[in-house]
Amino acid sequence: MSELNHKRFLLDHIAELIVVRASAYRDDAQRDYPQWELDNSNLKRLLAKGVGGVILYGGSTTDLEQRCFALRRWAKKPILLCADVEEGLGQRFKGGTVLIPPMAIGRLYNSDSQKAIYFAERYGSCIGKQAKKCGLNWVLAPVCDINTNPNNPVINVRSWGEDPFTVAELSSSFHKGIVSEGVMTCAKHFPGHGNTSVDSHLELPVLSSYIEELKQCELIPFSYLINKAVPSIMTAHLMFENIDSENPVTFSPVLTENLLRKKFFYDGLIVTDALIMDAIAKLHSSGEAAVRAVLAGADLILMPGDVDEAIQALYEAFASGRIPFYRLEESLRRRRLAIDRFEIKSKVLSQGSSYSSNYIIEETDDCDFAGELIDCTLESINCKYLEFDDDSINLILVDNFATSQSFNRRLPIFSFPESLGLKSILWNEFVVNPLQEKDGNVYLLPELCNKDILLQLFMRGNPFQGKNDIASGWISLIKTLQKQKRLKALVVYGSPYLWQEICEVLDSSISAVYSPGQMEEAQKRVFINLIDSKKTKNYGSNEFTN
Amino acid sequence: MSELNHKRFLLDHIAELIVVRASAYRDDAQRDYPQWELDNSNLKRLLAKGVGGVILYGGSTTDLEQRCFALRRWAKKPILLCADVEEGLGQRFKGGTVLIPPMAIGRLYNSDSQKAIYFAERYGSCIGKQAKKCGLNWVLAPVCDINTNPNNPVINVRSWGEDPFTVAELSSSFHKGIVSEGVMTCAKHFPGHGNTSVDSHLELPVLSSYIEELKQCELIPFSYLINKAVPSIMTAHLMFENIDSENPVTFSPVLTENLLRKKFFYDGLIVTDALIMDAIAKLHSSGEAAVRAVLAGADLILMPGDVDEAIQALYEAFASGRIPFYRLEESLRRRRLAIDRFEIKSKVLSQGSSYSSNYIIEETDDCDFAGELIDCTLESINCKYLEFDDDSINLILVDNFATSQSFNRRLPIFSFPESLGLKSILWNEFVVNPLQEKDGNVYLLPELCNKDILLQLFMRGNPFQGKNDIASGWISLIKTLQKQKRLKALVVYGSPYLWQEICEVLDSSISAVYSPGQMEEAQKRVFINLIDSKKTKNYGSNEFTN
Repeated sequence: MSELNHKRFLLDHIAELIVVRASAYRDDAQRDYPQWELDNSNLKRLLAKGVGGVILYGGSTTDLEQRCFALRRWAKKPILLCADVEEGLGQRFKGGTVLIPPMAIGRLYNSDSQKAIYFAERYGSCIGKQAKKCGLNWVLAPVCDINTNPNNPVINVRSWGEDPFTVAELSSSFHKGIVSEGVMTCAKHFPGHGNTSVDSHLELPVLSSYIEELKQCELIPFSYLINKAVPSIMTAHLMFENIDSENPVTFSPVLTENLLRKKFFYDGLIVTDALIMDAIAKLHSSGEAAVRAVLAGADLILMPGDVDEAIQALYEAFASGRIPFYRLEESLRRRRLAIDRFEIKSKVLSQGSSYSSNYIIEETDDCDFAGELIDCTLESINCKYLEFDDDSINLILVDNFATSQSFNRRLPIFSFPESLGLKSILWNEFVVNPLQEKDGNVYLLPELCNKDILLQLFMRGNPFQGKNDIASGWISLIKTLQKQKRLKALVVYGSPYLWQEICEVLDSSISAVYSPGQMEEAQKRVFINLIDSKKTKNYGSNEFTN
Repeated sequence: MSELNHKRFLLDHIAELIVVRASAYRDDAQRDYPQWELDNSNLKRLLAKGVGGVILYGGSTTDLEQRCFALRRWAKKPILLCADVEEGLGQRFKGGTVLIPPMAIGRLYNSDSQKAIYFAERYGSCIGKQAKKCGLNWVLAPVCDINTNPNNPVINVRSWGEDPFTVAELSSSFHKGIVSEGVMTCAKHFPGHGNTSVDSHLELPVLSSYIEELKQCELIPFSYLINKAVPSIMTAHLMFENIDSENPVTFSPVLTENLLRKKFFYDGLIVTDALIMDAIAKLHSSGEAAVRAVLAGADLILMPGDVDEAIQALYEAFASGRIPFYRLEESLRRRRLAIDRFEIKSKVLSQGSSYSSNYIIEETDDCDFAGELIDCTLESINCKYLEFDDDSINLILVDNFATSQSFNRRLPIFSFPESLGLKSILWNEFVVNPLQEKDGNVYLLPELCNKDILLQLFMRGNPFQGKNDIASGWISLIKTLQKQKRLKALVVYGSPYLWQEICEVLDSSISAVYSPGQMEEAQKRVFINLIDSKKTKNYGSNEFTN
């Protein structure tokens, strides 16, 4: 083999270790995040060059399915196609099922562990089945982090719970469900991201735990999953200053090579979390970051900011001997084993399209399961059918605009109360705040005074950051409204921590419901508990008849 | 032929006259309007029964393309597949091009008629080409209504102008552009919906025009299009009390049979507007409405509320002789001619999927054209690069929530001003109003006082309904802010009427821009006029780098 051919051969194989990001939409102009998602010409070029994986975002299930066909055609060899669909395929792709957050099942585990274990497995198989139908072969879940810190801004309700054994059991069951559908899982974020209060999307969290402490808590779910032969593990962008004071986990041979490979005998794929996350991108260029990750023990490099630079830097590191050559062979072997086991082998893939008259992604039993999860985890206090005066207000407070993006007027949070004659008012960080602070208490603006209130609160992560955070303002508002006898009912969607705080101050006369899920179906089921359908004014006229 | 076979044969052919509504999404649960969009089992059943057309809503261009394949497979014979994409395929299907409203080209016609005519034709071919790529063979446009009433709530900027000859010229050019791509057009809403102030989606508008008056104005664009052999015309849900005091247009033999067929010698397809619109649905059942429409001269029945009832009622009317049998033969003949001329005859359709590596829906020259239209119709007064104090406010007022549904934080209306350090505040009908009326003037709430304002106004239809409407409140606010010397710049997206009113009161020191289009690309181009990119703080960091 000539030197040139040798270089080309090497580059092709190095490229297999890279996972790039793309939109599931077909055309470049459709991308929601063009700064992170490759355009089609680069995507085609890089797949032709040997790039071995794509992580997909955005679009419908049909977009995803068609995109997976196209990517496989462009790659000409088997590739890994993955997505971050921890809470159902519908979390990222319209038309897939949206499931309640894992933490709701973790809470259920406390009262009925068998049911929770069954649900977690079914949760996994629901995701695995729909992912595979669309052409994915890799789901970046389960989250194995233990939410030991309720202030955790990035894990929170994504976690299966606050106790190591609950998380270990439920994430193992979830893994079992996905793998039973022939789809690869990924335990994340090694060695545990649950005890942070900093968002690693923004900066690098520094933790002081020692290995022994991790072993007694954070590592337990990972050790369970390694015993279940989890095919891949994702490293966290965290710094453990008492374990490796020089390197974040992704670059730390102490944590990956020594701990994960040697102590845990883990021989599956190690994949980095996205290298473009600021915690890492602030430290090193794409090339240097990729080299350091592979040196530390990573097999796959997720979303380097500059893909060509990452490939080139890895080539130079292997060619110069900075990374020993056997590391490339090892990583390629692990990747090949994963492909052999999980790549979809149906005829459909080669034919081009599977969209036929009888082929649907979300089946009736998926919808039923999603509904059952909602019903089993709804909590209500003093629930009775609501009665409101005619000028009452449906006040909806949302803790971040990202969530409220998809808020449209057809949603049950608007349409059900409106069918009772209430006027809706929405607040998020981009509109005028209907709340005012005065003398340490929170009130509604004068124009909303003297009206009865149905209060709906949307909050997922990061509820209590200090005295002046959003949640404490909301609780102060609840106290004020209770004094004024104007709070008629209250619903919390999302955070169990917020719900707990509210339960401690809530008058027993007020109907209150907690739904871990924020999705449309959960809203509908909340109102079925709160509304006497015979009394609604426009109910069923336009919005809720099928 | 046995009587049973005869009945079945007749029912099959009657069904060809019906156009039903479906979502372009694949699964039932994905439908945005399940109360109007058939589920898959009914859709399959009705297509197998012979239903001859489907109007599609929602989804991406890939959803649409795959859906059109599936519908053709279910129908087993050629069908009409249409959509209401008057302002670009992207108006209904994500990934298609979104174009400025026709009225903007109508305004351009006053200063440069040749350019406007060229644009209108290119506008049509852009829609036709993308529609055909996705599998549609029928576009429900051009709007031929003349917006003689600026208060018109339902036509307004959808119209090509306020003058009969402008509308006639531009709608003819638009038609030429679509037909050149092999796609069928539909002139609407016969005999002219431009002079109403009532929304026929809600109730039946009553007009007092005589035929002679219509001939001198409203009918002119239709007569132009009939001369250009427009393949279909849609009837309006209007009542002309001095022409046919008993029937709205859709049920009026005076207007359809006598005027359109006999006076205008029109032998193309006559299609009703959607029968589920309240103007009609309040008057008659689906069956009776379908019968009356066909009796009056309609060939195709759009969106009857109950499809089976409409087919059955038509069957009984033909069988009993209430409608003469030759009317069925005529309508079937006209439909067959349209199918022969416009049904897509490519190999692709029979193969199943056209999604291949090099196949995109929106090509670069479509994007360029959409951008050129925006640039050619932007108007600006006293434009200079903006300078703001640090606590200035980007105040965005939106006239209806439907429009603001898709408002997300990544849009240029948020991100560009934020890159200059402004704080965004959005108002729509569902959030607390930042405006207060006092002594006949409009002010900002106290908490927004003393801050400089960039004001962005979104309004399409129905701007001036009276003294207390939204628009007059906005104009009063502008006057207040000008007195307080706090209005630094102003942008109007949409209504030329609002822009004209504002121009009359605006101080010459204030930078102001008018964009007929409200879409993301228009917002971007507005800010390129207003912002010195060298001075922005975060510009290009995340949102606008490709």
